[in-house]
Amino acid sequence: MTHRIAILGASGYTGAELVRLVATHPTMQIVALSADRKAGMAMAEVFPHLAHLDLPVLQKIEDVDFAQVDLAFLALPHGVSHALVREIPDRVKIVDLSADFRLRDADAYRKWYGLEHGAMDIQPSVAFGIPEFYRAEIARARITANSGCYVATSLLPLVPLLAAGAIGAEDIVIDAKSGVSGAGRGLSEAMLFSEANEGFKSYGVAHHRHMGELDQELSKAAGQPVLAAFTPHLVPMTRGMQATIYAAGDADAARKVLAERYADEPFVQVLAAGQVPQTQHVKGSNLNRIAVFADRRPGRLIILSVLDNLMKGASGQALQCANIMLGETETAGLTLAPLFP
Amino acid sequence: MTHRIAILGASGYTGAELVRLVATHPTMQIVALSADRKAGMAMAEVFPHLAHLDLPVLQKIEDVDFAQVDLAFLALPHGVSHALVREIPDRVKIVDLSADFRLRDADAYRKWYGLEHGAMDIQPSVAFGIPEFYRAEIARARITANSGCYVATSLLPLVPLLAAGAIGAEDIVIDAKSGVSGAGRGLSEAMLFSEANEGFKSYGVAHHRHMGELDQELSKAAGQPVLAAFTPHLVPMTRGMQATIYAAGDADAARKVLAERYADEPFVQVLAAGQVPQTQHVKGSNLNRIAVFADRRPGRLIILSVLDNLMKGASGQALQCANIMLGETETAGLTLAPLFP
Amino acid sequence: MTHRIAILGASGYTGAELVRLVATHPTMQIVALSADRKAGMAMAEVFPHLAHLDLPVLQKIEDVDFAQVDLAFLALPHGVSHALVREIPDRVKIVDLSADFRLRDADAYRKWYGLEHGAMDIQPSVAFGIPEFYRAEIARARITANSGCYVATSLLPLVPLLAAGAIGAEDIVIDAKSGVSGAGRGLSEAMLFSEANEGFKSYGVAHHRHMGELDQELSKAAGQPVLAAFTPHLVPMTRGMQATIYAAGDADAARKVLAERYADEPFVQVLAAGQVPQTQHVKGSNLNRIAVFADRRPGRLIILSVLDNLMKGASGQALQCANIMLGETETAGLTLAPLFP
Amino acid sequence: MTHRIAILGASGYTGAELVRLVATHPTMQIVALSADRKAGMAMAEVFPHLAHLDLPVLQKIEDVDFAQVDLAFLALPHGVSHALVREIPDRVKIVDLSADFRLRDADAYRKWYGLEHGAMDIQPSVAFGIPEFYRAEIARARITANSGCYVATSLLPLVPLLAAGAIGAEDIVIDAKSGVSGAGRGLSEAMLFSEANEGFKSYGVAHHRHMGELDQELSKAAGQPVLAAFTPHLVPMTRGMQATIYAAGDADAARKVLAERYADEPFVQVLAAGQVPQTQHVKGSNLNRIAVFADRRPGRLIILSVLDNLMKGASGQALQCANIMLGETETAGLTLAPLFP
Repeated sequence: MTHRIAILGASGYTGAELVRLVATHPTMQIVALSADRKAGMAMAEVFPHLAHLDLPVLQKIEDVDFAQVDLAFLALPHGVSHALVREIPDRVKIVDLSADFRLRDADAYRKWYGLEHGAMDIQPSVAFGIPEFYRAEIARARITANSGCYVATSLLPLVPLLAAGAIGAEDIVIDAKSGVSGAGRGLSEAMLFSEANEGFKSYGVAHHRHMGELDQELSKAAGQPVLAAFTPHLVPMTRGMQATIYAAGDADAARKVLAERYADEPFVQVLAAGQVPQTQHVKGSNLNRIAVFADRRPGRLIILSVLDNLMKGASGQALQCANIMLGETETAGLTLAPLFP
Repeated sequence: MTHRIAILGASGYTGAELVRLVATHPTMQIVALSADRKAGMAMAEVFPHLAHLDLPVLQKIEDVDFAQVDLAFLALPHGVSHALVREIPDRVKIVDLSADFRLRDADAYRKWYGLEHGAMDIQPSVAFGIPEFYRAEIARARITANSGCYVATSLLPLVPLLAAGAIGAEDIVIDAKSGVSGAGRGLSEAMLFSEANEGFKSYGVAHHRHMGELDQELSKAAGQPVLAAFTPHLVPMTRGMQATIYAAGDADAARKVLAERYADEPFVQVLAAGQVPQTQHVKGSNLNRIAVFADRRPGRLIILSVLDNLMKGASGQALQCANIMLGETETAGLTLAPLFP
Repeated sequence: MTHRIAILGASGYTGAELVRLVATHPTMQIVALSADRKAGMAMAEVFPHLAHLDLPVLQKIEDVDFAQVDLAFLALPHGVSHALVREIPDRVKIVDLSADFRLRDADAYRKWYGLEHGAMDIQPSVAFGIPEFYRAEIARARITANSGCYVATSLLPLVPLLAAGAIGAEDIVIDAKSGVSGAGRGLSEAMLFSEANEGFKSYGVAHHRHMGELDQELSKAAGQPVLAAFTPHLVPMTRGMQATIYAAGDADAARKVLAERYADEPFVQVLAAGQVPQTQHVKGSNLNRIAVFADRRPGRLIILSVLDNLMKGASGQALQCANIMLGETETAGLTLAPLFP
Repeated sequence: MTHRIAILGASGYTGAELVRLVATHPTMQIVALSADRKAGMAMAEVFPHLAHLDLPVLQKIEDVDFAQVDLAFLALPHGVSHALVREIPDRVKIVDLSADFRLRDADAYRKWYGLEHGAMDIQPSVAFGIPEFYRAEIARARITANSGCYVATSLLPLVPLLAAGAIGAEDIVIDAKSGVSGAGRGLSEAMLFSEANEGFKSYGVAHHRHMGELDQELSKAAGQPVLAAFTPHLVPMTRGMQATIYAAGDADAARKVLAERYADEPFVQVLAAGQVPQTQHVKGSNLNRIAVFADRRPGRLIILSVLDNLMKGASGQALQCANIMLGETETAGLTLAPLFP
């Protein structure tokens, strides 16, 4: 059986990454691609690296024939999905890569995105799109809200540790670093090659939007409010993300919790003591690698978590969710080895 | 049917790239990996990006059980293969990524590699490993000599044009540029990040080893001796290769020759007039993209040819050859879309 | 004596580079900075790397008090200078970094820039701003037209060789490569970090604007029309430029001509036989390094010429010209060593 | 008066950076350069970017005529200086860029460097080479021990805050990031371009050698033992360093303490509230930029501190110390603006 796939917002990096993945997926077929301002163009004009594929022409969302679609990926800006999901027929499953359905709380959505939540009636039925935590919910959901990239990088190590009581819920510091592709394809002076190259900087210090999701999920895992420090940084590389996390806890015990928790997960690898993960070793793959070190401060530990922000941090995880929603093998289309060097 | 594959020289970049590709090949299985100085180590120690794969431990070549091998890739330094192929049982097919079997002429081999050719008796039966030119020879060969990366980049546009008389055999200039991975994993000061980063330079000016292969194949195509200028350059990026070629000829006619010649080839794309290929749009794929422009000098043209030096320039093309030798679909394991951005 | 300097167009890269240089010049003082769209802003907001300097606030050009100015650098877009130089008092000397005064021929200006030349009456008195060729003219000119970056890189080796008859005027191929900063600070998708990083491409194939200048100056040097092939490429690094040039001639003789010609020049270095220049070894300096190799094609040679496109290719050379126009030591403010690594 | 300068260890990056700086220093002259394994070579062979300078030939340390030297920079590996300083005549002042004289405690030296301290009798008279804290000691010292790069980056914000009681001495987290040049010019696979490019990783987690210095100086400033978490990371850029520091305290109060403390310092800039420093904006300069943000966790703050690891993190600061020791203007030779873009 072939699943018919629409990718809405195909002119951005997460949209293009979905096309790359779905194109070699054994049971999926791309039947529609949308990009409002570039409607009418061939994908090969917008992304020449996909020119060897036979793809539908880009169209406006309103021109997509959803009768031919089984599942739609929404790789659109925040604020669009609340209304859009009502216009898409109910039988079409949806993986939303925007933040519109990630937050359970309307106030939190307003605080972090400056918009009214337009679909609080639907929100409770939406699954949070980290399969390692919400596989069952994703399997039965019509809509899955794919997590943010920083959120996946941080939650994959932290949630099992908080749930197990292996780390303290206080005094968690998440120092996060991202490649430049996380900023998307929009034009801004700060993202020009000559500005971002050969430089490193923090941004969104103490007020990055992903904090809403972090607070929600960390607090849920801990069973108490968790307010972690979180500082994102921009690294002069295209892909890759690392969170360096400081918390109270015993490193060996924590590593053991994670190793057991993820023993059967195909995409999460807990490294042996002393091994250091590197972002370049997961590039282009759906892998997340985690290491735990004892801090020199007694009773404290340091966690390193790396992934590819466009893959396990976005489109790869979205496809993982789609596989689950469609009853497919979860790893289908996602067994690519990392591209190194 | 599953083909049992050995990769000799698995601790270098072309070896690792073969592992990446073969790991997702539908009908191949890696049964042996060799790396003399790293024998006994797990591949995950040598290349952590492959840690998610279940791979044989690295061993010495002499410990490889070739009775279990159907095809061996030789990703070894120059000068090793001549003797080695005699020690491998005849029934094992071989794709040699070194230069040892590329040159038909013992003098040329001595000139460019400073070594005596140790297997001139075998040489005539070896296929030159560019499938677009030697598909039939590769299909029946026991040994295929994969071309050099600069050679593939230059020959793919030039051979059909010379053969068709669409360009002149005199006054060909090949100005070539390579990413740093082409230099391999060996230690040298010039390849340190701080030395190669943010810089551009020529190297091997007027005496690069790939000239022997270029001369041989260009002359054969032209039916007369061809001596092209050839200057390689080092670009501060990991993967990617471009040849900018200047020759006498009519651009529109030449583009037409190439478009017709490659119309049915899965990996070679001839761009429409005015389009410019970019190395980043073929990264990680087996694609070669070619464009032809009229020079402002009347009667002359400019050819742009790009590929990924580790893929169509090395391991990807080697796998393409192996597929042919084994009677497999030629594109098997090679349908990966480029990784961009 | 202190020279009072205005830099018009200070919000672009060449403007900022002029500020960097003039700030440590022993006898110059910046008295005015203009940037029309950013008038009213502090330079530290536009270029934080200059925040440690005490600089005038950015203003509109029409608000600059030229009575307080001895020399103005015009780092403005093409098409502005023709009218502007008439509005600036005659006693103010001008170094124009745009292309507006580089071409002697109104038709050539129209062809390459699509504009009518608005100051042909002034053009004959303008000096072409490569001091190594036009030192006397620059010394007595009111206006100097700084050359383009590709032009300086190409002319510095080619002009003396053509003038001496050491190379042929036919069949010259200039394969040129530039860092991304040459594209300036304007917003375009192609110049985003994620697009330009880890990639290499040609652009402006056979129709780059710098050809007008090249034709003019090469023809003048040769005493006959010269039409060289010229292909620019974009290298994933911020600064640096190389021209790889192919021509007819004897390498040893040509190297000798250049070595003698530049023996007393402070900024041009002709390398010994066999040495290869690298762009990273001139970064941040006003140096140009040139090497000459014998081609393997008999009777032909290969020239390598490197410089920093923002320095000897733009602002450094502009300051060199300004020093001459003001009767200063030509190297004043330009003795910085390259920044490596 | 001209100061005669020797640079011992001139074949490494910090040695070359000293040459770059001293070459344009108004009152210093380089009279000797040493590099044991490259003795007899010209500096231009070892570092072509310095080929335009008239420099002494590299020699072995034992061949240096210290009778002609006023001040020697020691840019040598750890473990060499203890014996060497006794062999250099007493009248020669010394700035040691190694770690040999940074630690006051022989046990700490043994712990972090695995060597016996060979000059504990001299140690008490050595000044710790951060001029902003030890200007008077440096002025009267024969030997100054230049601080490590991570140490300068961390101490410049932390010492005044601890001394003023503006932050707590407990629970300090220093998450530090360095460009690749910090690893020096030695050969290692991990520092090859193809390995380090397009990747990010931690290293030396919880056991980096700079911790000894950090502990010593932070504890001294706080008047109590301070044990901060410290994790270094490798960023794919050549130069630049950032420390992101988490501590207890009020951001506005802390920013005020730092702004007042550094109001008259030429090289330390405390940014206004909300401004973010970037490493690319201090590249090639001796500047350190610091910003303080309120953490979202009440009562906590986040400090960002950036500098160029080869300048204020090594050779620039060493020259600053040398200026003080020689009675020169402290900023002499160090007024270079950053190189951006």
